[in-house]
Amino acid sequence: MDNKINRSEADSFRFWSPEVRKLQPYQPGEQPKHQKFIKLNTNENPYPPSPLVSIAIKQALGTTAEILRLYPDPDAKDLKEIISLQHGLNSDEVFVGNGSDEVLAFIFKAFFLHPNRPILYPDISYSFYPVYCQFYGIESIAIPVNKNFEISTADYHQENCGIIIANPNAPTGIALSLNEIESILCSHRDSVVVIDEAYVDFGAESSTKLIKRYDNLVVCQTTSKSRSLAGLRVGFAMAQPHLIAALNIVKNSFNSFPVDCLAIAAAYASFKDQRYFEKTCQSIMDEREKLCNSMEQIGFSILPSKANFIFASHEEHDAAQLASQLKQRGILVRHFNKPRINNFLRISIGSHEENLTLIKVLKELI
Amino acid sequence: MDNKINRSEADSFRFWSPEVRKLQPYQPGEQPKHQKFIKLNTNENPYPPSPLVSIAIKQALGTTAEILRLYPDPDAKDLKEIISLQHGLNSDEVFVGNGSDEVLAFIFKAFFLHPNRPILYPDISYSFYPVYCQFYGIESIAIPVNKNFEISTADYHQENCGIIIANPNAPTGIALSLNEIESILCSHRDSVVVIDEAYVDFGAESSTKLIKRYDNLVVCQTTSKSRSLAGLRVGFAMAQPHLIAALNIVKNSFNSFPVDCLAIAAAYASFKDQRYFEKTCQSIMDEREKLCNSMEQIGFSILPSKANFIFASHEEHDAAQLASQLKQRGILVRHFNKPRINNFLRISIGSHEENLTLIKVLKELI
Repeated sequence: MDNKINRSEADSFRFWSPEVRKLQPYQPGEQPKHQKFIKLNTNENPYPPSPLVSIAIKQALGTTAEILRLYPDPDAKDLKEIISLQHGLNSDEVFVGNGSDEVLAFIFKAFFLHPNRPILYPDISYSFYPVYCQFYGIESIAIPVNKNFEISTADYHQENCGIIIANPNAPTGIALSLNEIESILCSHRDSVVVIDEAYVDFGAESSTKLIKRYDNLVVCQTTSKSRSLAGLRVGFAMAQPHLIAALNIVKNSFNSFPVDCLAIAAAYASFKDQRYFEKTCQSIMDEREKLCNSMEQIGFSILPSKANFIFASHEEHDAAQLASQLKQRGILVRHFNKPRINNFLRISIGSHEENLTLIKVLKELI
Repeated sequence: MDNKINRSEADSFRFWSPEVRKLQPYQPGEQPKHQKFIKLNTNENPYPPSPLVSIAIKQALGTTAEILRLYPDPDAKDLKEIISLQHGLNSDEVFVGNGSDEVLAFIFKAFFLHPNRPILYPDISYSFYPVYCQFYGIESIAIPVNKNFEISTADYHQENCGIIIANPNAPTGIALSLNEIESILCSHRDSVVVIDEAYVDFGAESSTKLIKRYDNLVVCQTTSKSRSLAGLRVGFAMAQPHLIAALNIVKNSFNSFPVDCLAIAAAYASFKDQRYFEKTCQSIMDEREKLCNSMEQIGFSILPSKANFIFASHEEHDAAQLASQLKQRGILVRHFNKPRINNFLRISIGSHEENLTLIKVLKELI
């Protein structure tokens, strides 16, 4: 047999599933590999993970890395156990996945695919939400945040099968109170309400304490930000068992072993070291206040942030241009070329030294 | 607010997406955590990974595990590079994911969602294929393998938008020749043909050498079996760039960072150590021949395997019962309670000592 196949590139698109031709994927922030930047563009933690993490991984590996030849625990039981203990839940109220992006992808499939009933989310929020909707063919309505970029819970009073809200919201950093979240839960008793708490540990209030009382609440968290484990991809959801059961079915219909054995060991160790976690979160909050003060002094307006980033604009300077000037000077920040927010910069809170350098460079540019 | 919510469990299913209520998830083999078994039930490699793997992970971690605070390279460029080099491909002809189960899940979405055109796969094969079809609502036709459990390529001459074949097939271990695969590729020029080569390194011929000539071929492999990295979840697909592009779009609409930084470092190190890889694969093939001989001597019939497992039956003994007796004696093997194969045991090739113990115990039972 010798069938040389030469076809035009356009022709080869016939192999793609028709709906995949229309997908517009999420664009993560830049991850430069070979150049040294001050990276304030993807909300990574400036501190390394708890020292227990490295010890736990090395211990799991032993001398021969024998553990790696075996599949990981498909249910990550030990990890679910420690997460549930720390949140006052049972371990069947926890679901673990390959980063909170995967957990969210499973949540959209598990709860948001009700024909002719849209889901609702804020127009300014995590830009992966509309991508998941495209991926599954879920109808959605983006509810505008108000002129101060706040979420008004009253705006959500319309027919839906689900609501997803990042709290604190991204990229604004603005948090809702538990009362506001509870009012959403009460007004939408037949909808699953997902509170995406990727940034909750930097000063906002977690909705996990509402789980026992609301059978329609899913809280999603991650070890990527407050636990410095972005590299290892561990996210988790918490909810009553009848909702976790749906997530398990979805996961086991997609990938039985999404979280690897070293990630499980590392995340477990991180949850063991609560003191380190609290100390580093506090440092980031302290740095955030200092950074806000310094930036306000040179004319920036900053939304009130409860996250490990700030969302800042300057009346006299174009944000896109500032981002590009900062990059030329070795500092990466995130600019979204989107309506309403295209004159803002999202700046992750760096280490004390990184923040000082940022201020110094901004003073030169402003 | 104090709304105590008490609803019946049945009622709470209203939150599930209707299609999720119908999903029947994949059942992975048992992964006992706290009891010591000879584990011959999930086709894990009896040998640890290359010694370079452990070194690479520890090197990546350094003293503070600083690397973990940063997101991994979303494109796993270095890993794609070494995989492509070893297979005579360009790096844009490689896609990397969180285990080959995730890679397969992306493949089904990318290529098999053509309305009113089913996909085809063997009736006896990896039981995740029908689960993916359910997950996405893909129509499929299971083509019976013949009475010797072989795939007859002529049986695939019918309308389809895609074909997926495990080669060697699971759980039979029987391999197709490259000529047979080429005949499928030639007869289905408008379909994507996926060759799932999870077990190819144990004696079958890889279809990767056909990639340059067939614009409709996707080859899927994993580091879980032949590279002893099941614990780390790294799978990959190889195909011409117009097919890899679709996989990237699907992945970036689901999870931007599916492979973690330590898994990338470990898989890279494994591909560096080709000699160890070849040596351990050869040992497993040698052990397979010895095990087959010993089992045939006590009356087992064994299908001709090119995988790191064998599929065996005994005329006078019920397979389910044998599996349960073996478990009582500390040996796990896999039994599928499914039509046509419910009197077979799938037995992974263990270490020399494990195989000797298996034979000893079987002799007591038979």
